[in-house]
Amino acid sequence: MIYEDTLTVGVDLGGTKIEVALVDATGSVLMRRRLATRVGEGPVVIQSEIIETVMDLRNRSGAKPAALGIGVAGQVDPVTGTVHFANNLGWREVPIGRVLGDALGMPVFVTNDVRAATWGEWLYGAGRGCGDIVCLFVGTGIGGGIVSGGRMLAGCSNTAGELGHITVDLNGPRCNCGNRGCMEALAGGWAIARRARESVENDPVAGASMLRKAGGHTEGINTRIVSEAAAEGDPVAAGILETAARALAAGAVGLVNAFNPGRLILGGGVIEGLPWLVDRIDEEVHRRALAVAGAPLQVLPSQLGNDAGVIGAAIMAMRLLAGEDPEEPENRRQ
Amino acid sequence: MIYEDTLTVGVDLGGTKIEVALVDATGSVLMRRRLATRVGEGPVVIQSEIIETVMDLRNRSGAKPAALGIGVAGQVDPVTGTVHFANNLGWREVPIGRVLGDALGMPVFVTNDVRAATWGEWLYGAGRGCGDIVCLFVGTGIGGGIVSGGRMLAGCSNTAGELGHITVDLNGPRCNCGNRGCMEALAGGWAIARRARESVENDPVAGASMLRKAGGHTEGINTRIVSEAAAEGDPVAAGILETAARALAAGAVGLVNAFNPGRLILGGGVIEGLPWLVDRIDEEVHRRALAVAGAPLQVLPSQLGNDAGVIGAAIMAMRLLAGEDPEEPENRRQ
Repeated sequence: MIYEDTLTVGVDLGGTKIEVALVDATGSVLMRRRLATRVGEGPVVIQSEIIETVMDLRNRSGAKPAALGIGVAGQVDPVTGTVHFANNLGWREVPIGRVLGDALGMPVFVTNDVRAATWGEWLYGAGRGCGDIVCLFVGTGIGGGIVSGGRMLAGCSNTAGELGHITVDLNGPRCNCGNRGCMEALAGGWAIARRARESVENDPVAGASMLRKAGGHTEGINTRIVSEAAAEGDPVAAGILETAARALAAGAVGLVNAFNPGRLILGGGVIEGLPWLVDRIDEEVHRRALAVAGAPLQVLPSQLGNDAGVIGAAIMAMRLLAGEDPEEPENRRQ
Repeated sequence: MIYEDTLTVGVDLGGTKIEVALVDATGSVLMRRRLATRVGEGPVVIQSEIIETVMDLRNRSGAKPAALGIGVAGQVDPVTGTVHFANNLGWREVPIGRVLGDALGMPVFVTNDVRAATWGEWLYGAGRGCGDIVCLFVGTGIGGGIVSGGRMLAGCSNTAGELGHITVDLNGPRCNCGNRGCMEALAGGWAIARRARESVENDPVAGASMLRKAGGHTEGINTRIVSEAAAEGDPVAAGILETAARALAAGAVGLVNAFNPGRLILGGGVIEGLPWLVDRIDEEVHRRALAVAGAPLQVLPSQLGNDAGVIGAAIMAMRLLAGEDPEEPENRRQ
């Protein structure tokens, strides 16, 4: 039972920034703070900063949030509240649930950041009211979440949803994960930037426009620069984005055929920077997926954008508080 | 509540054969019949043959099966018991559930053949006791089933599990479904045969061994001939199987990363004919999947083989009879 006036805190802890928000039972953000993640300072300092920020939110709002949910970019154990491994943070075995819970005197629920964002989109965003969704978040890396038959899939060791690492081109480029041809290795922000840098190094004349935008430094080329150059008609940049679009569409087709979702929700920085990707993927998926799987499918942009993570984490905390297993909601089949 | 002495009938209706079996509550086949599917005769004749076969099984066994489950190679509506579309049978909108139920005077449950086989492997085969499995059946085509968190995934319009149509090579060959580079277009029996025929036509000298085995007729080349030729050292045949193995492994890696199953179960005619594929996929998946997803994973051959379909269909009927939603079993998490 969730009371209408229950408030919880949602935290989204990523490798570059930390979002902290006070969220109500309707999924609305009442107050928020954003901090840079000072990765070099280590977990003790970062946890202290989160604790101070939550205390500050409590003081300024006068509200009494009843629980806290935190999504961490890494591999977590939701039962013990420990972050086993978080690559971008350089963390191993950090008991953040216990640390935050002891300092703040409230129940703390720890989950993965992408899982939290999927919860947000499912319950309060583009997935609302649908029991079968696939969320694909395309940022520097690619992650996702799958809701099937009104349940969030967790997998046997809680790592389901690593959708960036489905193979879409078995002869494709090497991925950070060690495999080849992962969707992420063709369409993740790091891969788009890598490919652009390689193109510029191989042919500085053809790559002159991107190189100029990066102030003459190849290593300064990022997804934003590739997008700008492509928008201005640079064929090298456009080709790189075309490859990324094809990879995302191919991966999306496979996910639609495998899971038969009612909605495919696309979010993350790369999608926000290149919003035409949503229509492109929509068109390709409906053309290439099996007719029976494509017919009921809607392809939609994320509705919560950057807030999906804090809202999802806060809602998971609210469910925990209400005595429900946050990973086992009531059936919300369409 | 299922009584220990409950018997049900399982039927596996495919494009080439029909299996009918009397199955007990432990998943054991007590008696069986196999018929050729006389596709040309149409649905009325085929349904009559199934009815006669079930009556014959009842008479000969003296048993009183309480319900019947049938898995059909096609798209079905389990609620109405209608086959919407079955390509291999040439069927459209055949109300097989009502027809069999009226004639036999017992409840009939209609499902997809691959879904039924996944149920069989899950509850009585290689998936027993595990709540997170992926079954991949590699025959002429490739289909599958996914169990996650102790539930069989159905998708929003009951077509989840079309695992043959995940893209593994976005520049790959055309698939029967109209898309390119599906796992099935590289590793399904029809694709292996197609590629072998093309190779022989393009280079009859290099393909002499396969052509000889097919009595000089290119169109007689099938997966069995490719397997035999490869086993005898034919490099063309071996290359085709190598491509199929790489495609299966790439698809399996993606499924393992997306779903995080505890067991990946491999069955179907191509796997049975090329049992080394199980070890090959096992090795590749453990080398290429994310460490967190690969660590808990076992890769296993199907235990029920050709019986998975009839056992699964019979067990689904038993669950229906017991008043349970056959698609929503008790949680069998590992």
